[in-house]
Amino acid sequence: TVRNLFLLPGDGIGPEAMGEVRKIIAYMNEAMNAGFVTDEGLVGGCAYDAHGAAISEDDMKKALAADAVLFGAVGGPKWDSVPYEVRPEAGLLRLRKDLELFANLRPAICYPALASASSLKPELVEGLDILIIRELTGGVYFGEPKEIIDLGNGQKRGIDTQVYDTYEIERIAGVAFEMARTRNNRVCSMEKRNVMKSGVLWNQVVTETHKAKYSDVQLEHMLADAGGMQLVRQPKQFDVIVTDNLFGDMLSDVAAMLTGSLGMLPSASLGAPDGKTGKRKALYEPVHGSAPDIAGKGIANPIAMIASFAMCLRYSFNMVKEADNLEKAIANVLDKGIRTGDIMAPGSRQVGTVEMGDAILSE
Amino acid sequence: TVRNLFLLPGDGIGPEAMGEVRKIIAYMNEAMNAGFVTDEGLVGGCAYDAHGAAISEDDMKKALAADAVLFGAVGGPKWDSVPYEVRPEAGLLRLRKDLELFANLRPAICYPALASASSLKPELVEGLDILIIRELTGGVYFGEPKEIIDLGNGQKRGIDTQVYDTYEIERIAGVAFEMARTRNNRVCSMEKRNVMKSGVLWNQVVTETHKAKYSDVQLEHMLADAGGMQLVRQPKQFDVIVTDNLFGDMLSDVAAMLTGSLGMLPSASLGAPDGKTGKRKALYEPVHGSAPDIAGKGIANPIAMIASFAMCLRYSFNMVKEADNLEKAIANVLDKGIRTGDIMAPGSRQVGTVEMGDAILSE
Ligand SMILES: CC(C)[C@H](C(=O)O)[C@@H](O)C(=O)O
Ligand SMILES: CC(C)[C@H](C(=O)O)[C@@H](O)C(=O)O
Repeated sequence: TVRNLFLLPGDGIGPEAMGEVRKIIAYMNEAMNAGFVTDEGLVGGCAYDAHGAAISEDDMKKALAADAVLFGAVGGPKWDSVPYEVRPEAGLLRLRKDLELFANLRPAICYPALASASSLKPELVEGLDILIIRELTGGVYFGEPKEIIDLGNGQKRGIDTQVYDTYEIERIAGVAFEMARTRNNRVCSMEKRNVMKSGVLWNQVVTETHKAKYSDVQLEHMLADAGGMQLVRQPKQFDVIVTDNLFGDMLSDVAAMLTGSLGMLPSASLGAPDGKTGKRKALYEPVHGSAPDIAGKGIANPIAMIASFAMCLRYSFNMVKEADNLEKAIANVLDKGIRTGDIMAPGSRQVGTVEMGDAILSE
Repeated sequence: TVRNLFLLPGDGIGPEAMGEVRKIIAYMNEAMNAGFVTDEGLVGGCAYDAHGAAISEDDMKKALAADAVLFGAVGGPKWDSVPYEVRPEAGLLRLRKDLELFANLRPAICYPALASASSLKPELVEGLDILIIRELTGGVYFGEPKEIIDLGNGQKRGIDTQVYDTYEIERIAGVAFEMARTRNNRVCSMEKRNVMKSGVLWNQVVTETHKAKYSDVQLEHMLADAGGMQLVRQPKQFDVIVTDNLFGDMLSDVAAMLTGSLGMLPSASLGAPDGKTGKRKALYEPVHGSAPDIAGKGIANPIAMIASFAMCLRYSFNMVKEADNLEKAIANVLDKGIRTGDIMAPGSRQVGTVEMGDAILSE
């Protein structure tokens, strides 16, 4: 089998982190005949510098054609004042939209070796394992009108539109219920139905989808603000959380920070399975950003990028054993006290990006 | 002087908590000749039961005429399926909108006696004192269109509209900068300018307002998702946070939960000063909800409601010394180890709602 990967390292620490994944790919091709074929493109600030756009048409075509896209990170102070339409984030948003990656899976797990790095009390996060399912191609991110109007008299009006259709809610709820079945069988849906009409519809459609096809799964509803509170108060109460694009952005960041493992968390963005082949388009990216302050120094933590590749093995290529092994290798390296600077703790050995990648590879 | 207060105890634990404020008002009238004149109305579920609306026109008139409104809490399972337009929250939202209470002040402070009740490590929250300034009459809460459309074919579309005009951002930024000057002189403004046009405008207007009138205050901008993370990671980095209605809803709830003092936090919602009299319309309410599960049992914590009245003394009546004294009384009672069930700790003495109110009053 040929497995086509399209790599978009992006800006900041993206390229360094991606370098460590490249080593793992090379090893898997050599030792296990995995058949990965890679191509590479530009996204974010570097793409803007090269083409004047946050991603070129050519690279978009390659992303659409690949079995999976591996994405590093975008942005940095250098591009803080480029026009809105070509800002680094626009590349990522276009990839999500044009590949129809509506389901963003964000595990918030607490690596046992890192429980003490959380700002929460260790007993509240030890063993934490939440999966946040964020809708990724709808809501206020893409709804129209989205514009700034000049009203005259020195007044402007900024407008964004939150829109959700039944089918969009149905399909993301379906993903959440399916994932819950492979875990602890519980889903908590979050919205603001007390204020937003899209929240009323969200609540209804999730409830109906549950009743029609997933009544074996335990379903709970929570207002998104209360959900944010509960994440801080007692995060282990959750199994799978399903929510919209904007609430998902906020809540998954809070959840990620709770774990103390922010530099370690991966994510997967998936499309619908193709009617014929069953294949789904997919993009994998670390939850952390481009961290321009430490870029190019060889000290960035590559674990989130490597763990994103593990998700890629699992969801795009059904290489479950290989994904498990790679995840175990990460946990082992941490247990051995090998750490990059961001997760350094007394008694551990501090290493750089490359050494961390090597350590995981040799496990 | 006559000081007109309009009391809206609402549902759940609202009435019990308000009862303790009533005692303080009576004491101040008697012992200090404070001249408070109170009237009382219905809001939320109890108003729906009485009038079929979440607040009656009559009570709206009284709220508009009063010097200040004291608000308890609304909602409960009993009203979970009443129509959207008359749900309990609609009463609160109408009060905010019709009284033009655009500035919601939510202090997130950690009472020293309660630092260990936080889910965060005590050293991260001890001495925490953040003021969140949330825009309260704009954004996605009130923007039109806000509706559910039937698209046929079993498809519906839920729409909400996020709208901000220059003047709305200007005036809330002004409040934030003014408040910062009375504190540590730092403001952090949060939005999602990388995704939302209203965020782009928000960022621009805050920046311009700062430059034009408040350049002595230190200003920082943060993306709202990163802001949520930073609140969990290192909350003490903040002094004043200013943000929009929806982000403010989420972020202030997270901040409140961090303190370990959720049942204790007050809020003030203020209008613009009247051109002639300088008076501003105002509503004061606890951050916690109606807690239907413990309502009517005499065990609810009245501190948030009492602290809201302290804010009322400060902001509506300029009774700074009295407000300070009331806040000190609360801290003293906590220091003495007198606690309601929600903040009970080993070695403390557990009391009910009324006893807690008495203890504060006798301080
Ligand atoms: C970079 C930005 C556009 C993006 C988002 O808001 O979705 C990021 O915060 C994320 O969560 O992936
Ligand atoms: C009750 C609800 C409408 C309200 C809001 O969303 O503003 C509440 O959550 C709050 O924060 O005051």
